[in-house]
Amino acid sequence: MMNHSTYHEERFSAIFYICSYLVFIFSLSLLIPIALCVFYQEKDITAFLITFAITFSIGSFGKLRKRSADIRLRGRDGFLVVVIFWVLFSLMSAMPFLLDQHLHFSVADAIFEGISGITTTGASVISHVDGTAKAILYYRAQLNFLGGLGIIVLATAVFNSLGIGGSKVYLSETPGPLKEDKLTPKLADTAKHLWLIYVVLAILCASSFYLAGMNVFDAICHSLSTVALGGFSTHSASLGYYHSDAIELVGGVFSLLAGVNFALYFIAVNRRSLKAILQDAEFRFYISVALCVALFTICSLYFTGTYDFSQAFVHGFFQSASMMTDNGLMTNDINKWPTYVMILLLASSFFGGCVGSTCGGIKVIRFLILYKRSELELKQLINPRAVYLLKLGNTRVSERVTNSVYGLFFIYLLFAGLFMWIMLALGYDLKSAFGTVAACMNNMGIGYGVTISTFGTLSDSAKWVMSAAMLFGRLEIFPILIVFSRSFWRP
Amino acid sequence: MMNHSTYHEERFSAIFYICSYLVFIFSLSLLIPIALCVFYQEKDITAFLITFAITFSIGSFGKLRKRSADIRLRGRDGFLVVVIFWVLFSLMSAMPFLLDQHLHFSVADAIFEGISGITTTGASVISHVDGTAKAILYYRAQLNFLGGLGIIVLATAVFNSLGIGGSKVYLSETPGPLKEDKLTPKLADTAKHLWLIYVVLAILCASSFYLAGMNVFDAICHSLSTVALGGFSTHSASLGYYHSDAIELVGGVFSLLAGVNFALYFIAVNRRSLKAILQDAEFRFYISVALCVALFTICSLYFTGTYDFSQAFVHGFFQSASMMTDNGLMTNDINKWPTYVMILLLASSFFGGCVGSTCGGIKVIRFLILYKRSELELKQLINPRAVYLLKLGNTRVSERVTNSVYGLFFIYLLFAGLFMWIMLALGYDLKSAFGTVAACMNNMGIGYGVTISTFGTLSDSAKWVMSAAMLFGRLEIFPILIVFSRSFWRP
Ligand SMILES: [K+]
Ligand SMILES: [K+]
Repeated sequence: MMNHSTYHEERFSAIFYICSYLVFIFSLSLLIPIALCVFYQEKDITAFLITFAITFSIGSFGKLRKRSADIRLRGRDGFLVVVIFWVLFSLMSAMPFLLDQHLHFSVADAIFEGISGITTTGASVISHVDGTAKAILYYRAQLNFLGGLGIIVLATAVFNSLGIGGSKVYLSETPGPLKEDKLTPKLADTAKHLWLIYVVLAILCASSFYLAGMNVFDAICHSLSTVALGGFSTHSASLGYYHSDAIELVGGVFSLLAGVNFALYFIAVNRRSLKAILQDAEFRFYISVALCVALFTICSLYFTGTYDFSQAFVHGFFQSASMMTDNGLMTNDINKWPTYVMILLLASSFFGGCVGSTCGGIKVIRFLILYKRSELELKQLINPRAVYLLKLGNTRVSERVTNSVYGLFFIYLLFAGLFMWIMLALGYDLKSAFGTVAACMNNMGIGYGVTISTFGTLSDSAKWVMSAAMLFGRLEIFPILIVFSRSFWRP
Repeated sequence: MMNHSTYHEERFSAIFYICSYLVFIFSLSLLIPIALCVFYQEKDITAFLITFAITFSIGSFGKLRKRSADIRLRGRDGFLVVVIFWVLFSLMSAMPFLLDQHLHFSVADAIFEGISGITTTGASVISHVDGTAKAILYYRAQLNFLGGLGIIVLATAVFNSLGIGGSKVYLSETPGPLKEDKLTPKLADTAKHLWLIYVVLAILCASSFYLAGMNVFDAICHSLSTVALGGFSTHSASLGYYHSDAIELVGGVFSLLAGVNFALYFIAVNRRSLKAILQDAEFRFYISVALCVALFTICSLYFTGTYDFSQAFVHGFFQSASMMTDNGLMTNDINKWPTYVMILLLASSFFGGCVGSTCGGIKVIRFLILYKRSELELKQLINPRAVYLLKLGNTRVSERVTNSVYGLFFIYLLFAGLFMWIMLALGYDLKSAFGTVAACMNNMGIGYGVTISTFGTLSDSAKWVMSAAMLFGRLEIFPILIVFSRSFWRP
């Protein structure tokens, strides 16, 4: 048996190595905004250069440190890596915001904006987005994109191997279309394929935005944030800035496309057939609910006389797609929409999109399992002696998966309630508390009440609390609870 | 095998007989308010006499109808009986309110007040309770009491045999203190013993209120509504009318006592020892949470300067006990309390009291199971290969019970969300929608926003919707869904 302290040393060294590697990669990503500063001759370059210098040196130094020949991490160390990584990522992403001379950000502002970026929330404390340097605007979109990438890695490589989250439900539990292909045997390969799809989707999205009338810079920024379902925009009015039906339709369609499980795209491309997508139980439920919500929104906007029919159709479709999938781009006059429509859309952000996408919230497959389980519960009560099995498509869903889905649902709502209640205690009204927590915890990014146009109206304490809410939502709560639990640190 | 149509005839005849019997019992209960009308020389006697005439004739006629020698109801017919019974009960209870000349109630008002009574909600549409006839005031308290009795019958006789609800979890699944005694073999006997405890508790409560300074009439009415956790008062200001610390303390203590599983009292009396109560897992969780909520409320009221310490203690203890257990008596100035305290108390009404009491909400044992299940979920993620079993006290909780608890939790919150959203669509603000739905669905009876002092401010449509919410909450949703499901009507 291995010496105990040697084991701990190796473990520490392995985690240190992984984190250094991630810091290094992040530092490289800063080269693009630095280049943009040069190109657009913006003075914000100092902020990026300092951040680059710090992260590059730490990253390189950590990577150089001698790595144990054979890294042996126990399964549960993955949780530690995940939490440490996202905390580091939060701190790094906030640095340029804090160092920038024009933004005048407090520490709370910078951390909020950074976490909002990397968790693909897209809630912003900047009040005048239009007056902000292009390099900063691009950097924000890139944070969304990297955060989305991070979540895909998490979902495939880490969560999957740890048996947490929807990807476990999906990738290893569901046979049918997915199990046959088994994606690829090695997780690293799987991740690579999913990134490829992510990048291709971004290129398609950017081209579509460009063709719909955006300039190249805006098209690229909006596409980076849209495929990540992040929702940072380059304008204060978000997509409402353009007053263009075509652009809103593109935004709505790509929100929905980005909310589909990327693994389905991979299989569809492999097989050259859409059958795998169209037969997928989660996808069908997702699209049905999305269409119902959109239809309801469109009808409400039309019949309450908020818009004429074509405007109701465009705005209603775009906004419901953007909010349900937790993208969070918006048209500029949603504060005039009826309250019950806005609350429905805010509530739909808990629903989110499919697992294996970058959406936030509780995610479609969990609601599908909860819904099917409740149906069975009814049948069970009518015929107490019968034995019913929960199936998705042709596959049985095991008790363990059902339990983990129920568990997440309970914990998620508990924390949502807790965060809302803290907001009330901080003095916000119920409407603002609900909207702000839905926006942050579901990584959706559109607030309500005091946060409908900017989150800069929040107090510093509220910003800290909502920063935590974004991380809790993004990591689906359990990893954070685990790392802070006593059982985790017991040998 | 029995002839199919004969079977259906027998079934119908059996259900008809049971319902007639219940109508008959209800008609007899009207004799007390009729006597009060005579005693106090009130003109409202006509309303009660007409209701008595109608229900007595229908009840007697139905009872006289020849009953099949051998009633063979299938287990699932119980759901039908339950739903028909509560609908009938709702209609009957509303009649005196509708017929009364002084109340000027619309149909929606009368149905709301009646359902509020029988579901032990205690939300009232009467704006000037103090000016209302004594017979009516007593009748309301009696509705609470009968409704509580109805729920005990439901929980022991019907739900238990059908395997639904917490009593199943408790009475048949938990050994330890409860299983040894097994209460009594026959369900009818069990129910009788529990009623006895119910009546004794009411007598103790009435005496305490009387000793604390109430007059005899008020003491009886408040005790009937308190042991049923109904909360109808004889004054507009509820217990706030008396400005008496003693009365509020009695109200708080008896709210908590009425929220304990009555079966525990039965065992304690049988054994002449409090051990069974104090060792009960649900009771311990219930009291701990109640004390935490009370402590928090008291501290908040004190430190925000709402009251001096002794007032904060009395009002805070009384109001939190009354709201958490879904009793719903109140002090008269809760509209001045900080929002976050009120929202906490409204949220705590979802928690409720123990099963086997007359409380509303989701009930303590379900939250205990959800909490323990989430703890296990954490451990399971840390040690994926270990097998964990859920235990309450020394007993294993089966997967079926866990699933039914999760199922109810999901469906309950879904419907709570739905009802809130309908209230928003009817034009109410978020605060009023949340408070009103919490008050009605959890059978608690204290609203917020527009309904904080009376529910008479609601529109007729809102009253209908909230009447449904009270019934959905009281019957724990599933029986209603079952009776309206297709599988139920399939042979
Ligand atoms: K977002
Ligand atoms: K009540």
